[in-house]
Amino acid sequence: MPSSQDFRFGSFSSSVYIQRALPRRTAPGGSFLVVCDTNTLRYGRHFEQNPLVLEAGEAHKTWSAVEAILGEGRKRGLGRDGTFVGVGGGVVCDLTAFAASVYMRGAGLALVPTTLLAMADAAIGGKTGFDLGGIKNFAGSFYPAARVIAALDTLDTLPEREWKSGMAELVKTAILDTPSALDEFPAERPAPGGAAFERLLRRAVRFKGLLVERDPLETGGTRELLNLGHTFAHALEAAAGLGTVSHGEAVAWGIARSCELGGVLGITPPSTAAAIRQKLEALGYELRNPWPGRFDRAVFKEALIHDKKKRSGTLRFVVPAKKSARIVPLDIEGTDMEGAIESETGKRTIKNPGDVRMFFEGLW
Amino acid sequence: MPSSQDFRFGSFSSSVYIQRALPRRTAPGGSFLVVCDTNTLRYGRHFEQNPLVLEAGEAHKTWSAVEAILGEGRKRGLGRDGTFVGVGGGVVCDLTAFAASVYMRGAGLALVPTTLLAMADAAIGGKTGFDLGGIKNFAGSFYPAARVIAALDTLDTLPEREWKSGMAELVKTAILDTPSALDEFPAERPAPGGAAFERLLRRAVRFKGLLVERDPLETGGTRELLNLGHTFAHALEAAAGLGTVSHGEAVAWGIARSCELGGVLGITPPSTAAAIRQKLEALGYELRNPWPGRFDRAVFKEALIHDKKKRSGTLRFVVPAKKSARIVPLDIEGTDMEGAIESETGKRTIKNPGDVRMFFEGLW
Repeated sequence: MPSSQDFRFGSFSSSVYIQRALPRRTAPGGSFLVVCDTNTLRYGRHFEQNPLVLEAGEAHKTWSAVEAILGEGRKRGLGRDGTFVGVGGGVVCDLTAFAASVYMRGAGLALVPTTLLAMADAAIGGKTGFDLGGIKNFAGSFYPAARVIAALDTLDTLPEREWKSGMAELVKTAILDTPSALDEFPAERPAPGGAAFERLLRRAVRFKGLLVERDPLETGGTRELLNLGHTFAHALEAAAGLGTVSHGEAVAWGIARSCELGGVLGITPPSTAAAIRQKLEALGYELRNPWPGRFDRAVFKEALIHDKKKRSGTLRFVVPAKKSARIVPLDIEGTDMEGAIESETGKRTIKNPGDVRMFFEGLW
Repeated sequence: MPSSQDFRFGSFSSSVYIQRALPRRTAPGGSFLVVCDTNTLRYGRHFEQNPLVLEAGEAHKTWSAVEAILGEGRKRGLGRDGTFVGVGGGVVCDLTAFAASVYMRGAGLALVPTTLLAMADAAIGGKTGFDLGGIKNFAGSFYPAARVIAALDTLDTLPEREWKSGMAELVKTAILDTPSALDEFPAERPAPGGAAFERLLRRAVRFKGLLVERDPLETGGTRELLNLGHTFAHALEAAAGLGTVSHGEAVAWGIARSCELGGVLGITPPSTAAAIRQKLEALGYELRNPWPGRFDRAVFKEALIHDKKKRSGTLRFVVPAKKSARIVPLDIEGTDMEGAIESETGKRTIKNPGDVRMFFEGLW
């Protein structure tokens, strides 16, 4: 058995294995149900001749899919001690994990992420969910998988679009990690079979795991840093139509906006913003504002203002800093753009609310 | 502010207030959504002129109701720091709590139980859920309410049927508590306004709270004791048609069956079984086997065999003992009725599998 990175998320233990080949089995024993989608059927079949096959894609990340998983578990007689095994990308992992979390109030869960995004992000740290009312992951739970098995061989056939989606999360993690992590980030996409890539993935998993250990339920303000770029990204995804822009493309674009907002606020140093943009551009991401494809400005504004991370009517942006990033609560609907910036040295008021207002007006 | 009983369930804090009148407010502040049903509308309106009103009854304990709560929260702009306030019986409490647990992966929750069953059981300890595929609470989560406010005044108009539903859970708790708790259990239903009733309710809440503190996720074999009578009860509810028999009537009937099974297994002393039957009969419960109303034996057998508490194919019965109760894992589908009885003195095999088999054959 290869070695694992072991985390403790609240009352859950979670072991992450990064290895070359798919393992022979994922559950410690007992009954299990393998869930995959039409894209990952061959990996699903690796574990079980007759997996439950979901329709692939964000458009199918709905309650219907959750209900199908729950019903199939019931049909096969799975007990609370049975294990749901999600084999696929972020959508399959999130759906399977949510279903496991509510099946008889919580059954066993193992995840086999087969995309870079799922290996680096979706399968790690216990966030589950599905889309509701047109909002991504509007319903969900915190339910870490007991075992996550990332088999790098499954990336050999990963489509270009999926690579792009995953690499953005790796850049994000490097920004949050240490300045040297960003400096050392490869200028070109590393080969999936190589040691450089494996090192990058291990480091991203370790960083995210340790961050989540400190704040498993996203109540402590630490885990929230992982939302860097995501407030803008989710709004872009809504404005372009859910599933049109890949999550990673949206995150990269959102990180660029976060750098600009951080610049206006005097938090993101110009040199940091330039270094981040350079890495993202080298990897081929579209950073222009406004988004050059289909982009509904009214939907963008509406989605941003109703971001689900809102607290007490205040949006919470994450912007890059000299080291890592800062959380900036902003009431962008308020007429005077007042807000307080949380930082390690306490709170301070915004000095130039007019510039901040202009930044947002430039977005819609 | 009246005093509360404060519990710690895993990573959640839960304060239970037992008082006469409805409080003026339930949430510490910020935005909230009050959820009630057509039966509890006047209590819902006590907190908010425009509560979300669900259809009353077990038949409406479905995903549609959960979706309605989530959608209404979204419509009113509730953030993750908003609070869902469930005002009603077990169905409203379970639905509201489940919705709160998945709303943006977990929002605030307060419960105002208005039935005895909900005050003594459903609102305490964090079990949430809804019915799926004809199975009660098939999907759910563990999500204790930060505040539970039981206002005894709301019981003044409680229908007879609801009283009967709640008292059975109080008897169950007394059986599990100490032999003296059962001895002291009132022979007749105490008046809701009296001190005897309030003492009984406080003791039941305290007993359940302390038990759940030791085993919040029902993984440790302690919380499972609360299922006394419930394996038989859930099967009866299915056999009579969901919602036909009240939960408490089913639990009382199930406790009688548990006494018989415990007798066959040599765990429930005849004197204990007699004392339990006497209390239940004095309160007017139907204990005869087979159930004299509508009763589909095939459905009963099927529901019992597929009980959702099953582990590794083995059913787990709880039977009264000289003190408290014991958990008895039984493979009733196995031809030789072999099983092991868990007790404080270790495991032992069943001495008379033939008698146990006969007991179950007498049920269907």
